Amino acid sequence: MSGNTIGSLFRVTTWGESHGPAIGAVIDGCPAGLPIDPAYIAQQMARRRPGHSDLTSPRQESDECEILSGVFEGFTTGTPISLLIKNTDQRSVEYQQLRDVYRPSHADYTYEARFGRRDHRGGGRSSARETVARVAAGAVAQLLLKELGVKIYSFVTGIGEIRLDIPYTELDLQQAAESVVGCPHHPTAQRMTELIAQVKEEGDSLGGTIRCVAQGVPAGWGDPVFDRLEADLGKVMLSINAVKGVTFGAGFEAAMGRGSVYNDNYVNSDGKIIPGTNHSGGIQGGISNGADIILDVAFKPVSSIPRPQNTVDRHGNPVKIEIGGRHDPCVVPRALPIVEAMAALVLADHALRSRTVRIG
Amino acid sequence: MSGNTIGSLFRVTTWGESHGPAIGAVIDGCPAGLPIDPAYIAQQMARRRPGHSDLTSPRQESDECEILSGVFEGFTTGTPISLLIKNTDQRSVEYQQLRDVYRPSHADYTYEARFGRRDHRGGGRSSARETVARVAAGAVAQLLLKELGVKIYSFVTGIGEIRLDIPYTELDLQQAAESVVGCPHHPTAQRMTELIAQVKEEGDSLGGTIRCVAQGVPAGWGDPVFDRLEADLGKVMLSINAVKGVTFGAGFEAAMGRGSVYNDNYVNSDGKIIPGTNHSGGIQGGISNGADIILDVAFKPVSSIPRPQNTVDRHGNPVKIEIGGRHDPCVVPRALPIVEAMAALVLADHALRSRTVRIG
Amino acid sequence: MSGNTIGSLFRVTTWGESHGPAIGAVIDGCPAGLPIDPAYIAQQMARRRPGHSDLTSPRQESDECEILSGVFEGFTTGTPISLLIKNTDQRSVEYQQLRDVYRPSHADYTYEARFGRRDHRGGGRSSARETVARVAAGAVAQLLLKELGVKIYSFVTGIGEIRLDIPYTELDLQQAAESVVGCPHHPTAQRMTELIAQVKEEGDSLGGTIRCVAQGVPAGWGDPVFDRLEADLGKVMLSINAVKGVTFGAGFEAAMGRGSVYNDNYVNSDGKIIPGTNHSGGIQGGISNGADIILDVAFKPVSSIPRPQNTVDRHGNPVKIEIGGRHDPCVVPRALPIVEAMAALVLADHALRSRTVRIG
Amino acid sequence: MSGNTIGSLFRVTTWGESHGPAIGAVIDGCPAGLPIDPAYIAQQMARRRPGHSDLTSPRQESDECEILSGVFEGFTTGTPISLLIKNTDQRSVEYQQLRDVYRPSHADYTYEARFGRRDHRGGGRSSARETVARVAAGAVAQLLLKELGVKIYSFVTGIGEIRLDIPYTELDLQQAAESVVGCPHHPTAQRMTELIAQVKEEGDSLGGTIRCVAQGVPAGWGDPVFDRLEADLGKVMLSINAVKGVTFGAGFEAAMGRGSVYNDNYVNSDGKIIPGTNHSGGIQGGISNGADIILDVAFKPVSSIPRPQNTVDRHGNPVKIEIGGRHDPCVVPRALPIVEAMAALVLADHALRSRTVRIG
Repeated sequence: MSGNTIGSLFRVTTWGESHGPAIGAVIDGCPAGLPIDPAYIAQQMARRRPGHSDLTSPRQESDECEILSGVFEGFTTGTPISLLIKNTDQRSVEYQQLRDVYRPSHADYTYEARFGRRDHRGGGRSSARETVARVAAGAVAQLLLKELGVKIYSFVTGIGEIRLDIPYTELDLQQAAESVVGCPHHPTAQRMTELIAQVKEEGDSLGGTIRCVAQGVPAGWGDPVFDRLEADLGKVMLSINAVKGVTFGAGFEAAMGRGSVYNDNYVNSDGKIIPGTNHSGGIQGGISNGADIILDVAFKPVSSIPRPQNTVDRHGNPVKIEIGGRHDPCVVPRALPIVEAMAALVLADHALRSRTVRIG
Repeated sequence: MSGNTIGSLFRVTTWGESHGPAIGAVIDGCPAGLPIDPAYIAQQMARRRPGHSDLTSPRQESDECEILSGVFEGFTTGTPISLLIKNTDQRSVEYQQLRDVYRPSHADYTYEARFGRRDHRGGGRSSARETVARVAAGAVAQLLLKELGVKIYSFVTGIGEIRLDIPYTELDLQQAAESVVGCPHHPTAQRMTELIAQVKEEGDSLGGTIRCVAQGVPAGWGDPVFDRLEADLGKVMLSINAVKGVTFGAGFEAAMGRGSVYNDNYVNSDGKIIPGTNHSGGIQGGISNGADIILDVAFKPVSSIPRPQNTVDRHGNPVKIEIGGRHDPCVVPRALPIVEAMAALVLADHALRSRTVRIG
Repeated sequence: MSGNTIGSLFRVTTWGESHGPAIGAVIDGCPAGLPIDPAYIAQQMARRRPGHSDLTSPRQESDECEILSGVFEGFTTGTPISLLIKNTDQRSVEYQQLRDVYRPSHADYTYEARFGRRDHRGGGRSSARETVARVAAGAVAQLLLKELGVKIYSFVTGIGEIRLDIPYTELDLQQAAESVVGCPHHPTAQRMTELIAQVKEEGDSLGGTIRCVAQGVPAGWGDPVFDRLEADLGKVMLSINAVKGVTFGAGFEAAMGRGSVYNDNYVNSDGKIIPGTNHSGGIQGGISNGADIILDVAFKPVSSIPRPQNTVDRHGNPVKIEIGGRHDPCVVPRALPIVEAMAALVLADHALRSRTVRIG
Repeated sequence: MSGNTIGSLFRVTTWGESHGPAIGAVIDGCPAGLPIDPAYIAQQMARRRPGHSDLTSPRQESDECEILSGVFEGFTTGTPISLLIKNTDQRSVEYQQLRDVYRPSHADYTYEARFGRRDHRGGGRSSARETVARVAAGAVAQLLLKELGVKIYSFVTGIGEIRLDIPYTELDLQQAAESVVGCPHHPTAQRMTELIAQVKEEGDSLGGTIRCVAQGVPAGWGDPVFDRLEADLGKVMLSINAVKGVTFGAGFEAAMGRGSVYNDNYVNSDGKIIPGTNHSGGIQGGISNGADIILDVAFKPVSSIPRPQNTVDRHGNPVKIEIGGRHDPCVVPRALPIVEAMAALVLADHALRSRTVRIG
């Protein structure tokens, strides 16, 4: 069975391994007539790219995205859009020693259990390198959403034990872009930065959390009963490497509370019906209610840590490994454009789906 | 677009409204030769049914499941299995007053925003009544999984602020069935029961959390990159009414930790390679690693509370409503068979998918 | 894998066996707001029903279609529409003798080869009885298409060696309904009727052909490259029992001709661009061009013939069988509503699909 | 909605325009462990390539297929296989004059009607150039089928009015490869060749027919009721440019005959149950019966003919066009590898599907 395609109407298939010649995505179902700005795609990809600061992997990726089809004279034509990003700066030789070893918390063992073999170079298909194709495709989805008045923000709300506790409505979300850790609150960002530096020194790694907010989604997107907006958004978030949890609105906090506190009623705001509060994260019954869509994503710490670890090889022999390669102590800040891309793919899909649910 | 079908190979479509003549499910893709035990299906449905105790809605549902096709002489034939559950004890008249009103945190407004109309009787399609079809279909999936050696457990880990803090590996999960609140630890169960009784008295409602554990899943199930096991399991959990969060393994806790602590290495256990620890919840790279699959689900408090609430009607006029009908102050215990059913549907699907990924 | 669902946006799943308690269909994706006229559904089902004349099977089927969900106060709500038709007048005992025998040109052997078992009663799932669910679901699709100005006609163009050779544009297609064999040209219908009577006497059966014409389909429906209108229409026609061929426009005749003869140019008709000729059957590049969509379907002769035939049983022993039961010598006239239903399902699906292909 | 993906388990998405930088396919779902022979892919593509003889278009296409992912050390890994073929020898300028014109029987008008715009260069996405990606992907499917003992043959059975009337069982199908027109009977091939030469001289074009035979398909492939083998095979054949008809076994001929003649009984052949005759083309009830699968495909004449034709431009103005470019008078011989590729994609898909239909 496949597994490399997401979406019903705005469909994206990604392909490619970390150390193969290229990685790419094919978008099938993007409506015709959408102006495509390659600079915007490049900009989203740049946000994901390592090598920005001392905090990230020194792997150099130029990550130019070639558009091979589906765009003519600057506009989409309604035919598949093929995006291709060449892999460069591959140092497969570094991975030779890992050919027969199952790294802790990596997919080495599970890929072999499933497929009977694996491309061991840099994690092959299981590498986070795959997400570069998602970001490229997601940028096209974001261009579509812009035309529809939807804007997606994301920012880092936690790195290790450091938490951003200020409600996002009291922050300037644009400031996340100016922070090396993607946190829009300067003092918290500073503490996060220091923690990453410290943990890097310790030869360890960190997890963290991201909040994603979609503004401008009209009431009426999302398809009960299985393709609820939470379900589809949750699925794609959980399809990102290292993600181990996703919540909407008040999430697990609401689970500890009372209905009288967490219910969102409706109010009349200058003749428009809108939710008066937003504990539900903009979704009721799986369908958007016009309020901001709010979700939180948990990333486990990076599995590749530069200290010796015990594990076994393919034959069950105990081995002590030290993972070389070039790895970030914390990938969460670089995951922001990935989270936005995944949210955009789902919302673009549901934007199109919502056009078919009424007779007129 | 549809939205009422889940699964790729083991596919389930549900249909039906709360106050229509019946509710049902069609399973397409269940393999031939599976012995079907109607008593087992009935038993799972009974666990979901209200009216067990003072804690639940007095709505009486007999919930007999008719098998209309796909089973012949006690075995599945490989053709679609149609399951039908008649609706009884409907009191639509009680809902007449809600025809034009948008109840807080209900799907009334969003269904209308999407479809331009709605069946207002008891929430129509958005009613939790729909889950009866899921439980019936999930029971068939569980019968299939049993043949494959997989067993799914679930139990309540939180009701409001009461938390079960003992690791599940130190509990007898079978005891959950003996608790009216579905919690396998008697003293905690007792406190949960008391809290529900108290909140019922207060005319309020409660959320809670459920942990689900699947044992016996072999290494190798799950399909990177989008149909990772977390992604598919997470999606179906988030498709359950009132669910607002899902996590795997250490979840949000891991997001606050270090890789050196949360990495799961591999060990040789009597010649068999297995994970030495299980912070990842049995999944690496989206594929099962042979350890228990562990997930947690957060339910927001029930939206229907028996106290006056402010909201608006279809025309934007402010109204104060008092929701009658028969509602539970806390649905979490009754959600256990639903959570298990949804997990079973995904695992049955991936069991079949895993048969097609190797040449031989 | 499934196989019992058709359509992308207007999706239909059918279920049920010939001698089970009921047969049904679930429509997922029918837009909200469509007025549902149960009398129209009943009328289409009546056209399919046997027992109209001496020419058809005496099996009595009342074939009442219950609508169990998705329709509220006369209009679709956008939720799944569940249609159920009870099976009556089953005489399973007649089929007992066929339990272990593989009837010639029936699906007995192939179902067993696939599933390892089969419901032998009346062909089980492979019975043409299954098409009753298609006709019911197709009637809903036709109601949708009516709203969009599309009308589907079909008529019998051949029974055995008797052919209708007059172009349909010179006939009154409504007259097909008045002919017991569904042929709109009286003298030809008369000869067809006589041939069927004669072949019935001979204890043999006949095949035949049906032409289907869809009028009012606007230019722009159909999705290149794999979901071309011919591809999707052809697929559903070939999914009907006994169909062994389908052609569009000039079909195999065009294969013998020249481009200079068969090319369809465009002309300006009072300011509207339309095809000047229609050898292509209303489709270019897989997309409708505004002309009538024309397709022809070939049915092989009925496999059940009331004369002794040689075959083998499950153990490979040669047996001579005489098929009892109640079978038509020629099913082609009764297949008209099935052909129309299948065409309607595809066109309704593509009507919805066409709403999502442009940005605005 | 998409439309550029085919298959359920062995899924292929194609992308690319005739005059874009490249064309390609992504295969998702090819099982791991399949040895990939690039020479075999190249060989299938060479059969499709124009420029072989005086009879075909002089367009030069090197058509090298790059494998960008999914193959490691010579074997498939179970991850998506990305195939890319660069477009070369494009002469877009030749098409400039056709920018605003709707060529007869081309997709110019219908693409615009659907998408509001089109890439007019060489037909863009509607060009038969797209089929190069199908042939490449189909070659991978054929490698999979070889492992399973299935072999697919195709040969030309008609060019214009010249018909091959000898049953294929009396011919050496390998000889088709040695004929410039793909016909395995030398005298008929000679007459076909002469007819093509004559029609080329006349500035006209020809249609034709292809028979495709799959040998070695075991009984039990194909999924009732909608994904019958005829339905899925028929769909893909009708998705090929210029195809206007498809039949199975005796096809339209059977429609004119009697059940007593066309029924296929079963016989015991050395302890194996096999069909005694094969009028059904190897399929009963939509499932293979172990006999050869036989289908026939009708191609209409090439639309591009080198003589003046009347049509209109985008504004409805009548224009007389003369199509330059480089076009074959008859594409049928070059379509053989396309027909085989499409058959292979369906059979590979159903091979995998058949693994999931039984409990054991």
